[in-house]
Amino acid sequence: MTSLLLKLGGSVITDKQTEYPRLRSAALTRLAQEIASARPKRLIVVHGAGSFGHPIVARTGIDRGVRDLRGRLAWAETQCWQNVLNVEIAATLGRAGLPAIPYQASAVARMRDGRLRRLDLGVLRGLLDAGMIPVLFGTPAWDDRRGCSILSGDVLTPYVAHRLGFDFVVHATDVNGVYDADPHLDPDAEPFPVVDRRTWPLVRRALRRSAAVDVTGGMLGKVTELVRWARRGLRGRIVDANAPGRVRDALRGRPVGTLVTW
Amino acid sequence: MTSLLLKLGGSVITDKQTEYPRLRSAALTRLAQEIASARPKRLIVVHGAGSFGHPIVARTGIDRGVRDLRGRLAWAETQCWQNVLNVEIAATLGRAGLPAIPYQASAVARMRDGRLRRLDLGVLRGLLDAGMIPVLFGTPAWDDRRGCSILSGDVLTPYVAHRLGFDFVVHATDVNGVYDADPHLDPDAEPFPVVDRRTWPLVRRALRRSAAVDVTGGMLGKVTELVRWARRGLRGRIVDANAPGRVRDALRGRPVGTLVTW
Repeated sequence: MTSLLLKLGGSVITDKQTEYPRLRSAALTRLAQEIASARPKRLIVVHGAGSFGHPIVARTGIDRGVRDLRGRLAWAETQCWQNVLNVEIAATLGRAGLPAIPYQASAVARMRDGRLRRLDLGVLRGLLDAGMIPVLFGTPAWDDRRGCSILSGDVLTPYVAHRLGFDFVVHATDVNGVYDADPHLDPDAEPFPVVDRRTWPLVRRALRRSAAVDVTGGMLGKVTELVRWARRGLRGRIVDANAPGRVRDALRGRPVGTLVTW
Repeated sequence: MTSLLLKLGGSVITDKQTEYPRLRSAALTRLAQEIASARPKRLIVVHGAGSFGHPIVARTGIDRGVRDLRGRLAWAETQCWQNVLNVEIAATLGRAGLPAIPYQASAVARMRDGRLRRLDLGVLRGLLDAGMIPVLFGTPAWDDRRGCSILSGDVLTPYVAHRLGFDFVVHATDVNGVYDADPHLDPDAEPFPVVDRRTWPLVRRALRRSAAVDVTGGMLGKVTELVRWARRGLRGRIVDANAPGRVRDALRGRPVGTLVTW
C-alpha cells in the first residue's frame, strides 16, 4: 500500500458527548505519531466534524438548504468551525513531522440537491506529487439547488480515493471493525475479520438482526457503502483508533479490525 | 456600486511590528461594523497575511519553492497560519451580521513559476449567488514547477474582481491614498484625490522622486498595478482603514482617499 486514504471519524478526533466543539487533543497527538511511524508514501487524510459540526447543523438545519440571512450566517459559522478543526488536525500532524496541509474541499465542490456532483482534483493531485499530505474534511458546501448542503467526510472519502486511483482506505473509528452485535453493548459480540463476497451475506444478516434490537443501523449503512466501493476496487479496513497502535498497524497493512474487500 | 471587492491589507488586520502572528482585533471589529453598515449587495473580501505570513515566509523561503521535508513542513505550517487568520476575520465579520465564509483559494489555484496560471471561479460565483460573502486570502499555493509559491492578496484581488465582472475594488490600507511623498514621514505630503489618464504622469513623477529618497517604492508599484487594471475597467479606491468611517464611506462610493480610474 503505497497510496492510501485515512478517514478519521468525528468521534475519534472530537468529544461527541458535548454540545460545544471540543478536540480530543491527546488522542489526536498519539494518532499523529502513529501515522508518522507508518509513513505511507502517498497519503490523504479526511476527517469528520464531530462536535464541531453536528450540533450546529442539527440546530440550524443548514443541511436542508438555506433561504435567509439567518441560514447564511449559520452556514458561514459552520464553515468557520470546520476550518478551525481542520487547522488543529493539520497542525498536530505537522508537529509529528508530517507535511499535512489544510484543504478546504468546499472551495471546489459542487453539490446538487445534497449530492456531490463534481470536485476538481487537479490541485489535490499536485499537492500529492509535491509530497504533501492534504487534510480534507466534512464541510458545508455550495449547492446549486439549495444554496448549501453538507459534503460529509463519508462521501468525500470514496470519491477522492477512487478518482485519484487510490486502492485502500483506513477507517479510524471508535469500534474495531464489524461485529455481529454492538460490541459496546454486548460483551459476546463476535468480530468479522473479513467482509468479502463469501462472508457478506452472513455479515449483512447479522447487522440487520443487530440493527433491529440496538439501533446500530449506522454500521449496516457504513459497511454496505464500503462493500459497494470494494466491488469497484477500493478496499477498506475498519479499526478502533482508541486502541493504541491499531491505526499504525492498519496503515502498515497488518490484519487488524475488519478488512472489506471483494 | 452593487458588486465590489474589499481588499484588507495585512497591516490593517494584523500587527506587523511583531515577529509573531498577532491580530488587530479592535480594528477588525470596527471594520466589520463599517462593512455591515455599508452592506454592499455583492461583496468579496480578500485579506493579506501580515504577521501571520511574512515572517515565516521570509524565514523559510518557501516563496522560492520547496525541495525537501523541511520546506514542505514550512509550507504546511504557513497554510495553517493563513487559515487561522482567515477564520478570525470571517468570524469577526459574522458577528457583525455578515455571512462571511472562509474560502481557501489555494484549493483551486494553479501557479507556475510564481505566477497565477488558473483559478476556477465557479464555486465562488455560486457562493455570491447564494448571498454569501467569500473571504479569500493571500496564501501559499501549489506551483507545478516549484512545488509551492505565494499567491498574494494583491494578485488575487484584480484576478478575481476582473474575471467575475466586478468593476470596483476598495483597498483598505494604512495610508489615505496616494501622496506626493510618504505622509507618515513628511507632514507636507500632498494627496492626489484622483489618479486617471490626466493626472497619472504627474503622480508617477512624484512617486518616483519620493521613492528615491524615502523608500516608498511600494506605493509606486501598487499604484502602477492599479492603473494597469483601471485601464481594463477595474476602478479602485485607496483609503486609510485606521481612520474610522473611511472604509464605510469608500464602500458607499463617497470620494475619500484616492480614486484610481481611467
